[in-house]
Amino acid sequence: EDEKEEELRQRFMAPPVSGLRELRRRRRELRSRMELLIMETQGEVCRALAALDPGAAFAVDTWERKEGGGGISCVLQDGEVFEKAGVNVSVVFGLLSEEAARQMRSRGKSLKAKDGKLPFCAMGVSSVIHPKNPHVPTMHFNYRYFEIEEADGTKQWWFGGGTDLTPTYLNEEDAIHFHKTLKEACDKHDLKLYPKYKKWCDDYFYIKHRGERRGIGGIFFDDVDSPSKEEVFQFVKSCAKAVVPCYIPIVKRHCHDSFTPEEKLWQQLRRGRYVEFNLVYDRGTKFGLLTPGSRIESILMSLPLTARWEYMHTPPESSKEAEILEVLRNPKDWVH
Amino acid sequence: EDEKEEELRQRFMAPPVSGLRELRRRRRELRSRMELLIMETQGEVCRALAALDPGAAFAVDTWERKEGGGGISCVLQDGEVFEKAGVNVSVVFGLLSEEAARQMRSRGKSLKAKDGKLPFCAMGVSSVIHPKNPHVPTMHFNYRYFEIEEADGTKQWWFGGGTDLTPTYLNEEDAIHFHKTLKEACDKHDLKLYPKYKKWCDDYFYIKHRGERRGIGGIFFDDVDSPSKEEVFQFVKSCAKAVVPCYIPIVKRHCHDSFTPEEKLWQQLRRGRYVEFNLVYDRGTKFGLLTPGSRIESILMSLPLTARWEYMHTPPESSKEAEILEVLRNPKDWVH
Repeated sequence: EDEKEEELRQRFMAPPVSGLRELRRRRRELRSRMELLIMETQGEVCRALAALDPGAAFAVDTWERKEGGGGISCVLQDGEVFEKAGVNVSVVFGLLSEEAARQMRSRGKSLKAKDGKLPFCAMGVSSVIHPKNPHVPTMHFNYRYFEIEEADGTKQWWFGGGTDLTPTYLNEEDAIHFHKTLKEACDKHDLKLYPKYKKWCDDYFYIKHRGERRGIGGIFFDDVDSPSKEEVFQFVKSCAKAVVPCYIPIVKRHCHDSFTPEEKLWQQLRRGRYVEFNLVYDRGTKFGLLTPGSRIESILMSLPLTARWEYMHTPPESSKEAEILEVLRNPKDWVH
Repeated sequence: EDEKEEELRQRFMAPPVSGLRELRRRRRELRSRMELLIMETQGEVCRALAALDPGAAFAVDTWERKEGGGGISCVLQDGEVFEKAGVNVSVVFGLLSEEAARQMRSRGKSLKAKDGKLPFCAMGVSSVIHPKNPHVPTMHFNYRYFEIEEADGTKQWWFGGGTDLTPTYLNEEDAIHFHKTLKEACDKHDLKLYPKYKKWCDDYFYIKHRGERRGIGGIFFDDVDSPSKEEVFQFVKSCAKAVVPCYIPIVKRHCHDSFTPEEKLWQQLRRGRYVEFNLVYDRGTKFGLLTPGSRIESILMSLPLTARWEYMHTPPESSKEAEILEVLRNPKDWVH
């Protein structure tokens, strides 16, 4: 047992918020299994990224939330390969107001509180990777689990998450590899999942005022509470395990590609769009910014190191820049 | 008369949206006088800025709004002195839904519509100037006028506006000059105005999730409809006329100051905060992004050319960077 614990310790970036002993004691509970999964995912992704950027290292910050819980933020900044890479775990609990609970749930189900307050637990791993080279796409993923206890003691629970890619330039081979890897992870559980969550992703990451998606998508889902807790957890686990294989080969393939100053400039303009989506539309970011006691630096870790806004920038027709815009305006199906 | 028209033509950056002839015909109406004022302000500010950046020139775009009205956007990008300077006029009219009309008015007064629609007219000049040199502050101003006609024919009208400064480093002399010039413009009309609108400015430009103001303030007011249309117009005119004298001397004083790469970096981080305020909190930006038919490029003209976000950047104690942060966290009174 001690050996196993030692092994876990080495795979994690820091001791888990709930403590290894507590997690072992409650190892049959889904909350504990999910916390182990997000810790393991954080370790896996950080190690895979660090291996590609040997000169740089992840800074690891653990933080506590006064109201209950805490988190572990791992950030690599200004590396050779990555401009800014953040992988964040948070495990928070406490009491929610009915209003906050309703906002948390995208479908806005009402929940019956005892004395207006609902005990809740929210945990997740979330990450945004912004590489330096404009031929390496930005990647984002997030897997999360919520529990809320109603006045009569019944527990509401649901999962959310997704993985999506934001290239500066379109590379069809990369797009197909990325979507195919995600589809395979989904298909193991239900053939309906990939098409449904692929569309949800295209719909969610929509920058309405630009008429563009943030990127070429992937999968996205929220508020999933069927068929069963165990089955959804297994699905989320498959998705989390797919992060490294869907992204790392793309980084390896392009991180030494040569690029021009014009390509770097286009990347910076696209980073501006990334900022626009995250600050104007992203539900998670907005919810975080409005939540008292949330850790702002971990939430805004998703913003790129640098971004650019030019007035009336329009790429010439049939340029490589126009090619990606076309796909952002009209999402494609990459695998069937 | 023709001479006068010719003179106006030369002072404006483009023909006014309503046409010079129409403005002359309706010269006694406040709408026309306000349109002339915003056109004149645009011309004045653009000429003053261009004179300081001789290598660069304002690009002038006129645009029409399908639903009624249009605007003139003047943008100078990547000059010697200014990184991005935009001065925008818009004059739009048409029909508003009751919901949109309510949102327009910050105090949320209800308005009685005929068949659910309200004829409205909104016009204004708005501008953001982002200089290159970190010792020259960013400046923003906006002066606007609204009219809405209710079902029974009564017209609601109000003015809004303000001018505020966002330095990268604190220069007390500049701060005092800026506030003093604004105070003088206000004091001509009512001694209560400057203290009231100075506080409103500090309250409005608050980045809640950072606990910081966007800058060192200035004046801000909205929804002002007393004591009378004429008096408020005269006050707005004084404010608009104060833009050049409150800002241009500061630009002249510092645009040739030497600066270090570290100072430029701090400027870029502050630009990131500027983006955060504008995209997350600014009512005008949010309203614009959500309004169908609005001109996105003119709205987002306010964003800097470049911005930067570093994870957990904290300036050392008693540094110049910490000095400005202190003032952004606890606004000061610059004139009494």
